[in-house]
Amino acid sequence: MEKLTSLKNPKIQFWRSLHEKKARDESHCFLVEGTRSVQDALHSGFQMEALLISEEYTLPIPAENTVPEYLVPAHVLASVCDTKTPQGICAVMRQKLQPVTGPHLVALDSLQDPGNVGTILRTADAAGLDGILLSRNCPDLYSPKVLRATMGSIFHLPAETPSHLPDRLRALRAEGYMLLSTELGGEPFFSFSPGNSKWCLIIGNEGNGVSGEVRALATHHLTLPMRGGAESLNASIAAGIMMYVLMQKASPFI
Amino acid sequence: MEKLTSLKNPKIQFWRSLHEKKARDESHCFLVEGTRSVQDALHSGFQMEALLISEEYTLPIPAENTVPEYLVPAHVLASVCDTKTPQGICAVMRQKLQPVTGPHLVALDSLQDPGNVGTILRTADAAGLDGILLSRNCPDLYSPKVLRATMGSIFHLPAETPSHLPDRLRALRAEGYMLLSTELGGEPFFSFSPGNSKWCLIIGNEGNGVSGEVRALATHHLTLPMRGGAESLNASIAAGIMMYVLMQKASPFI
Repeated sequence: MEKLTSLKNPKIQFWRSLHEKKARDESHCFLVEGTRSVQDALHSGFQMEALLISEEYTLPIPAENTVPEYLVPAHVLASVCDTKTPQGICAVMRQKLQPVTGPHLVALDSLQDPGNVGTILRTADAAGLDGILLSRNCPDLYSPKVLRATMGSIFHLPAETPSHLPDRLRALRAEGYMLLSTELGGEPFFSFSPGNSKWCLIIGNEGNGVSGEVRALATHHLTLPMRGGAESLNASIAAGIMMYVLMQKASPFI
Repeated sequence: MEKLTSLKNPKIQFWRSLHEKKARDESHCFLVEGTRSVQDALHSGFQMEALLISEEYTLPIPAENTVPEYLVPAHVLASVCDTKTPQGICAVMRQKLQPVTGPHLVALDSLQDPGNVGTILRTADAAGLDGILLSRNCPDLYSPKVLRATMGSIFHLPAETPSHLPDRLRALRAEGYMLLSTELGGEPFFSFSPGNSKWCLIIGNEGNGVSGEVRALATHHLTLPMRGGAESLNASIAAGIMMYVLMQKASPFI
């Protein structure tokens, strides 16, 4: 195991640069932090480029002898990691293009909050959807906050960031997908049933909802009902309810 | 309008102390920050004790001539507020005991995350539940983080923190409520129907689930199905899905 001690070491500097979207985009790499996430990553089918282990790490090191391993002082690991108290291990992973196909999709149109993006991805995985599409202006899928909120589902659910989301949705529509825009003043969600159709649920920006261009493409405009005094739902909560209820209609949970 | 300029003014010091649970518990007061939340608070039926307005606040001041108003410099308002960039207005509110009754309830057993507590309260309000019960070791309902996540629903949904949650649940059970514990390895959630029964959905701790004492009281043990590779759902997402689906069964959304 190679030992690296200097913050000025070019490898350390490169890994640390992965906090920035630009560096991730150029290198097609990203960081995964903590014991559990590193183990998920090892069994994910994603390629691991390097494993960084703190000198103080006491757990058994996940064996994968083709991955270069580096021993680093705790403060060096901390400088590479985004979490305030890293668990003494992190991995550099290669991003993986995963074409999104299958009958049940979710698309995120201009979401702002990284926690919402990661949580919706995690819930889509749990509900059994086939993939997720993100507009370019969503938080980067490989940013530390999004990754943490996915709780490992980043490794399970195909995700795609098309160059122009409306074009991708137009193509889906041409393939026979229902495009389900979620908005205020639409058709009542619980009365809607997609039957056996393919569909893509579209979740809009937390403040402004689905963009005009995407709304114009939608085949259906659905509204989750609200009682009480609440005026809105959190975007990831609304997405979670609708994904589970749509999947229950498409293919009932046993 | 009285003008207060010193951070050492006893009123300012008292308001600032409301960041702490102890001070909130003793005074039965809490702070509400920002234009929208202050407006919600004014129309809430909760008693407003004081209105603090920054010298730089330019919006019209919500009129309520029975409430003492104080003009303060921006840095003084910032010292009272929890948000990093307060919008120039905040209100001191009196806590309100709201007995939780009605056929459809949710109970939070030892939740940890203030965002989850506030989000579940907000979603319960939107779904049309009648009230929320919180165990004493949940984040304080009147803490700034919980309040922010409720998005004003704190003023709409009756909430109660019984001295011992299991005793309160035992009493509900004696009144004929189904106690629906959510856990792994239980009855499939989507196959369950409460018919016309009264129920209380119980959401457990993010890491450890529903506590043993509460599980033992439950009349039903329900599990939300998971497909894909996800091993769990975020607590507020799971609660959101189950509350909406249960309400849809109890009293269908139009």
